[in-house]
Amino acid sequence: MSTPSIAVVSGGVGAARFLAGLVSAVDDPSAITAIVNTADDCEIHGLAISPDIDTVTYTLAGAIDPDRGWGLMDERWIAMESLARYEAVRPTGSSAANRWFNLGDRDLATHLYRTARRAEGATLTAITDEVRRAWDVPISIVPMTDDRIATTVDTVEHGEISFQDYFVRLHHDVAVTAVHFRGEARLSPAARQALEHADVVVIAPSNPLVSIGPIRSLPDVDHILAARRDHVVAVSPIVGGAALKGPADHMMVELGHEASVVGVARLYQPIASVLVVDEVDAHLADAVEGAGMRCVATPSIMSTPARARALAAVTLAAANDRMR
Amino acid sequence: MSTPSIAVVSGGVGAARFLAGLVSAVDDPSAITAIVNTADDCEIHGLAISPDIDTVTYTLAGAIDPDRGWGLMDERWIAMESLARYEAVRPTGSSAANRWFNLGDRDLATHLYRTARRAEGATLTAITDEVRRAWDVPISIVPMTDDRIATTVDTVEHGEISFQDYFVRLHHDVAVTAVHFRGEARLSPAARQALEHADVVVIAPSNPLVSIGPIRSLPDVDHILAARRDHVVAVSPIVGGAALKGPADHMMVELGHEASVVGVARLYQPIASVLVVDEVDAHLADAVEGAGMRCVATPSIMSTPARARALAAVTLAAANDRMR
Repeated sequence: MSTPSIAVVSGGVGAARFLAGLVSAVDDPSAITAIVNTADDCEIHGLAISPDIDTVTYTLAGAIDPDRGWGLMDERWIAMESLARYEAVRPTGSSAANRWFNLGDRDLATHLYRTARRAEGATLTAITDEVRRAWDVPISIVPMTDDRIATTVDTVEHGEISFQDYFVRLHHDVAVTAVHFRGEARLSPAARQALEHADVVVIAPSNPLVSIGPIRSLPDVDHILAARRDHVVAVSPIVGGAALKGPADHMMVELGHEASVVGVARLYQPIASVLVVDEVDAHLADAVEGAGMRCVATPSIMSTPARARALAAVTLAAANDRMR
Repeated sequence: MSTPSIAVVSGGVGAARFLAGLVSAVDDPSAITAIVNTADDCEIHGLAISPDIDTVTYTLAGAIDPDRGWGLMDERWIAMESLARYEAVRPTGSSAANRWFNLGDRDLATHLYRTARRAEGATLTAITDEVRRAWDVPISIVPMTDDRIATTVDTVEHGEISFQDYFVRLHHDVAVTAVHFRGEARLSPAARQALEHADVVVIAPSNPLVSIGPIRSLPDVDHILAARRDHVVAVSPIVGGAALKGPADHMMVELGHEASVVGVARLYQPIASVLVVDEVDAHLADAVEGAGMRCVATPSIMSTPARARALAAVTLAAANDRMR
């Protein structure tokens, strides 16, 4: 098909797989811009880590480790294993030598590069594009913001903790009572351009609260999308009442939402006109429409590249139908 | 022998080998304190690197790569090799993805730990002691200062450049017209304690200008040593008019000194009473004495642990003779 310009509002693994499908579904991948959540970004051992950007980049480069879903394939862990020596000597309360946030030796190069460019004053937008080009990724990848913003979650057991503490260290296995986005951040110019002017905006099948949520928390984003919601299609990350990966389902319940495509529709109704749901949720189409979104049901589990491509094609077609 | 307390004013490789000899020459290594140059310290890819401290620590741990003289044995270079991808995409003028300062994967753990501890506000003194304990090194290793100070050199070809630019990138293969120590730094409390109170102070066979020089540049150091020069013995890093390693010989000439044990004596005469020289320089003993230092000639090339131990024993004996 002739390629409209497409902005994809993106988190990590689910968005990355959707983007890979989209690349194979269009004639000209350079018309695609991924606007990626950076509120999970963190500094570990002094290194600037951007987990969702790296997951998107590595996936589109065909270099992601398919089993872990993060980091590079054919990875080694010598630096991390060598850190073990220092765990015994760090003072009480120090988080130096922490190894729960695992960084492979190949992956470290990306963080070393990003950190060095940061120290030189480069924006995350510029760095992300350099890394993308180094991996020959054919789409634009832009951070949602060039400013620092950090997701935290309130937990009963541990109080307010960083997103990576919650997600990686605690394996998102604790109940969350609130989500915060700490920091004053503005939409990056490239992200704004794409949201305002893309022919189609897709909200990727990512966690609505902690992947898409931080992007929506930036000034103007909901306003921009609401003003053009006929151009905006969302893909549900909830299938049959469950998240395929990550804590979206129980987190939605903990925060007062329904863990279903209907709950997703209620969240996205102000900013998107169509919700693509899995065929197992076809019986909920009326409820989704009742929540204010047109509903398209299709196989949405991206277990193979062909399925990801098919989901992307259906999503694009739904957007084009809507705009016609 | 019963062990006096010994402070060793130290640079990198030569000092590290001397210290290893000293450890094997005394009954109680815990009486030894290495006061180590930190003016070569640098930040690369955002990581805090302390080359001389690491060379001393790794050498005394028996873990140094004996051929390179720096870094760890059995090292891998996956992270550095993976940086190559980013060289092609960094903008002109960026030094990100530089690989001339090579960091092995095992060695990276030390820099990750030091960087994380720095970010937590720990002093370099505290961090250095933690790293030392992680490697079971039996002596005290203290940085000359907890403040930032950086050696730069003036060169005809390149102007004023950082020490690592000169030493590593340019292989110390350019003429130097001046040396500067940039930054305001004070002697660390532990270094001051050792210099003021050790029974014996040894100036290790390190570069007098860029390894020992930065330590002497700190306020009070020359004053402290001059006041107790009968307790201070220096070991010449110049043997037969040449440096065994590094640029000390041509740098001395470039900066107006004589590249000989006599030139070394003229530099150290104000702060040390004895100069230990190699046996090949025994014929210069009178000239050394003429420059104001007692001269002890002995085999000083530390090509084996036994030779390093013998040199350390002679050096200690010379100090004890002097004080008797």
